[in-house]
Amino acid sequence: MGPHPAVAAIRLAVRRVLHDILNHHHTCGLPGRQASGERANRTVERPPSPLVLVACSGGADSMALASALAFEAPRLGVRAGGVTVDHGLQPGSDLRADEVVLRLRELGLDPVESIAVTVGRDGGPEAAARDARYAALDAISERHGAAAILLGHTRDDQAETVLLGLARGSGIRSLSGMAAVSGADGRYRRPFLQLDRQTARKACMVQSLPVWEDPHNADPAYTRSRLRHEGLPALEKALGKGVVEALARTAQLSRDDADALDAWASQAESSVRDATGVLECAKLYALPPAVRRRILRRAAIQAGAPAGSLFARHIEEVDRLITGWRGQGAINLPGKVVARRQGGRLVIRQG
Amino acid sequence: MGPHPAVAAIRLAVRRVLHDILNHHHTCGLPGRQASGERANRTVERPPSPLVLVACSGGADSMALASALAFEAPRLGVRAGGVTVDHGLQPGSDLRADEVVLRLRELGLDPVESIAVTVGRDGGPEAAARDARYAALDAISERHGAAAILLGHTRDDQAETVLLGLARGSGIRSLSGMAAVSGADGRYRRPFLQLDRQTARKACMVQSLPVWEDPHNADPAYTRSRLRHEGLPALEKALGKGVVEALARTAQLSRDDADALDAWASQAESSVRDATGVLECAKLYALPPAVRRRILRRAAIQAGAPAGSLFARHIEEVDRLITGWRGQGAINLPGKVVARRQGGRLVIRQG
Repeated sequence: MGPHPAVAAIRLAVRRVLHDILNHHHTCGLPGRQASGERANRTVERPPSPLVLVACSGGADSMALASALAFEAPRLGVRAGGVTVDHGLQPGSDLRADEVVLRLRELGLDPVESIAVTVGRDGGPEAAARDARYAALDAISERHGAAAILLGHTRDDQAETVLLGLARGSGIRSLSGMAAVSGADGRYRRPFLQLDRQTARKACMVQSLPVWEDPHNADPAYTRSRLRHEGLPALEKALGKGVVEALARTAQLSRDDADALDAWASQAESSVRDATGVLECAKLYALPPAVRRRILRRAAIQAGAPAGSLFARHIEEVDRLITGWRGQGAINLPGKVVARRQGGRLVIRQG
Repeated sequence: MGPHPAVAAIRLAVRRVLHDILNHHHTCGLPGRQASGERANRTVERPPSPLVLVACSGGADSMALASALAFEAPRLGVRAGGVTVDHGLQPGSDLRADEVVLRLRELGLDPVESIAVTVGRDGGPEAAARDARYAALDAISERHGAAAILLGHTRDDQAETVLLGLARGSGIRSLSGMAAVSGADGRYRRPFLQLDRQTARKACMVQSLPVWEDPHNADPAYTRSRLRHEGLPALEKALGKGVVEALARTAQLSRDDADALDAWASQAESSVRDATGVLECAKLYALPPAVRRRILRRAAIQAGAPAGSLFARHIEEVDRLITGWRGQGAINLPGKVVARRQGGRLVIRQG
């Protein structure tokens, strides 16, 4: 008899990602790779087996992930370790981190570490905690020379992320959610992005893994928590059970579309500048609005406007210097960047 | 003292659209237009003043629209008429239609008509009613030679439409909601697409216009009604009051993005076919996934697959013949269309 379907599902998801990491590792990670003719005549030195870490909060999603990694890694010649981040946001969070370390060791992971971080305030509590967490994970990944860090985000997390992006109303890039592969060198991997939260929970249950419920997840002070417990269920009630899957699919399609349009804008950019590098209005006008606005956004960011404060309405206003020119004055953008039309040129610069 | 702000808002929205219709009418609608030199020397015959119709259910949104049209049209030399569609879905709907006709006449609109339609069953009750309604509006528009038909959809309707599209999970085209200008020759105009429902209601109230509440709008059997009364309020509670505006902005941005990508796919399509018009896998492979999948979708539709039954997962499967080729068999698509890889070619055809 095979494992419970939920356990089979989490293991399959992890196995696929490990295969992908190994392919990448063997192709790219082999220093001074031999030409194939030469290789056939002698024993090839295999690279040291790669280390894959799991980032684990002790919650159901990442505990399920850790258990699947612990099971699959040895079968594929991969070393498996774990890390837990102590955000220091609740009393006793250090003890909790120690407990997670113990549980990861019990699963057979090695090395296992806990890292304490200091959470700042930039961008609100959720963004600040995220920034601190990824900085710590980056550091530990580099220290151990890890081939990858697995993150336990599920399809439900992805659906929530899409809705959060939707609420910003800033276009399809913000609808594209989290990537299956991200970070420097693609070091972050999200094996559960197409798996639902319920499956991860079930897998913990049938494997008798104790899980920790982060009180933040149920705290209505957090937007994501309100979305999870009220917004998304109400949307499912109105639109049907397929909403989470539809949101996750929207994320993938939006990401591909945004990538293609960014590539187009990047390519078109050089063709709309004059010999001195200044944007020419007539050439911008001839582009599709979606491409033109991306070029304007890039130009504003290059001039010093902070990407996070640059909203769709700013770009629309700059765009009207091209498409609705009636002699309007300079447009002020965040970061003291100013856009003005001078003759047939669009000048975007700081000050 | 000027009009109430809500009345000023609805009138401004209609005025802008009428200006646009007039520009279009004077530029394009003038038969046998004279060269400008000749024109200066004689009295120009003005074209007959254009007729603009409002489609009115008797509800607050379209009554507000009718009142604003009745006010603005004479000031701009536009003739204003109205039409109400009797869907015959409720007992007494004919009497209701007669009442709407009376109210539109009281506003000074002329001509005013009621049209009874027979609602079929294709695509569910909401889609069938919509199809019947637009067919009737198309017919009356042509009979009267109307320059435009105004529709009362508000920003709230737009937000609901985006969420309905999101639930399909079929990509950014379905997130792009309703267009401000649509239909043959751009005959349909939606002046209130950036105005909220509350403003339209308020405008009716302060003008003492009686409005009719369509019981369908509150009937939880209808998806849109559930969304309006439960889904969207819950989402606002979780994400904040700006959700409706963010969804409407997402619609506009997604529409522009989808248009640009469609244009790209349309242009790229000829370059990925061989001399006999068959798709070449290597050339398809080199395109960004977003463009390649659009080409595959177009090819499937050209081969006879009904657009409405062709889902993202179908296209993904066809795409794997290009990106994940491991000798898999033919892919069956809706409409008995089959996609198969033959050597380096992708053949998509019926049967």
